[in-house]
Amino acid sequence: MSGRFITLEGGEGAGKSVNLEWVAERLRQRGKTVRVTREPGGTELAERIRQVLLAPSEEPMADTTELLLVFAARAQHLDALIRPALARGEWVLCDRFMDATWAYQGAGRGLDRDAIAILERLVLAGVTPDHTLLFDVPVEVGLARAGKRGELDRIEQESRDFFQRVRDCYLQRARNEPGRFVRLDATRPLEQVREHLGAWVDAITEGA
Amino acid sequence: MSGRFITLEGGEGAGKSVNLEWVAERLRQRGKTVRVTREPGGTELAERIRQVLLAPSEEPMADTTELLLVFAARAQHLDALIRPALARGEWVLCDRFMDATWAYQGAGRGLDRDAIAILERLVLAGVTPDHTLLFDVPVEVGLARAGKRGELDRIEQESRDFFQRVRDCYLQRARNEPGRFVRLDATRPLEQVREHLGAWVDAITEGA
Repeated sequence: MSGRFITLEGGEGAGKSVNLEWVAERLRQRGKTVRVTREPGGTELAERIRQVLLAPSEEPMADTTELLLVFAARAQHLDALIRPALARGEWVLCDRFMDATWAYQGAGRGLDRDAIAILERLVLAGVTPDHTLLFDVPVEVGLARAGKRGELDRIEQESRDFFQRVRDCYLQRARNEPGRFVRLDATRPLEQVREHLGAWVDAITEGA
Repeated sequence: MSGRFITLEGGEGAGKSVNLEWVAERLRQRGKTVRVTREPGGTELAERIRQVLLAPSEEPMADTTELLLVFAARAQHLDALIRPALARGEWVLCDRFMDATWAYQGAGRGLDRDAIAILERLVLAGVTPDHTLLFDVPVEVGLARAGKRGELDRIEQESRDFFQRVRDCYLQRARNEPGRFVRLDATRPLEQVREHLGAWVDAITEGA
């Protein structure tokens, strides 16, 4: 019996958070031990790094600084939580992971792709998600939903074009790795999204 | 008239801090505009990263996390302070910089040298110190001095062997780059160290 690493990805307001615990509960009903976590963050130290990353600041954060902080938090998360949980046979359910770096820092901010690839190899050291749920909505729909939740953090205060590049990157990555990604049309009513999610959980836990 | 980038390096209790402002003042007397700073830190955002790096924590920090945080702070420091100051023709005097990463994270902790070299290229992007003052004392002397200052932070709570590797690395780097490094025997009385420093400042500002 071995653990699995499942990541949830998507733009602002795509419904990741509202479905995270639901998927976890469904997996538990199928007999799995589930660990729910998120990035950036997931451990006490990684959450401290997340605070530095997301707190509004008068001093503009350099792109390279942002990238290195994201990977510093990820290195800690992998070391202190993800690798040990998988080694114990648990199923790890993570709100955002490496695809988010390609989408937000790579496509969104246009940071050096070679640098991201180098850091990806250095930090992941072979740990990649077994499955990735992509919650996909058009940018306008997602931003309208996120806006209703209250104040936007530093990264959410980006332009519409930024979020379009983020979405396009996610969709491209899903096309490139159809075996890993499940794309969910998150404009549909919640019950329909959950029907899709439920059938998927049943399928991947069949015999696992 | 162009700025110069001067770094001060050395182990614990070697006397960097007690001489930093003195060198700055001597440079000002020679007509230079001097910016005094330190690593990790030097700007508001970089100091926030320093806090995460040095605060004692129950959760052990992964080596890769420590390395990425050091470079995240450095990227911010270079972008928001060092590069702009040098571009204005100022002389930047920095308490610890890249040599400290090779000494503490590389030699001290034994972190992957290839990873450090990759991050060095990514973050420095060509900005290297013009001069480096190495305050050198035997490990026992330095630790005895640092211990008198009060509580040791997370990095200072390392073993004696760790600090020996740090010192050896600094000395090796000084031998490899004799044109950049000035080694100061910091076991000597403060007046003698300052005589050496004063003569050096006069020499490098001659005609500069």
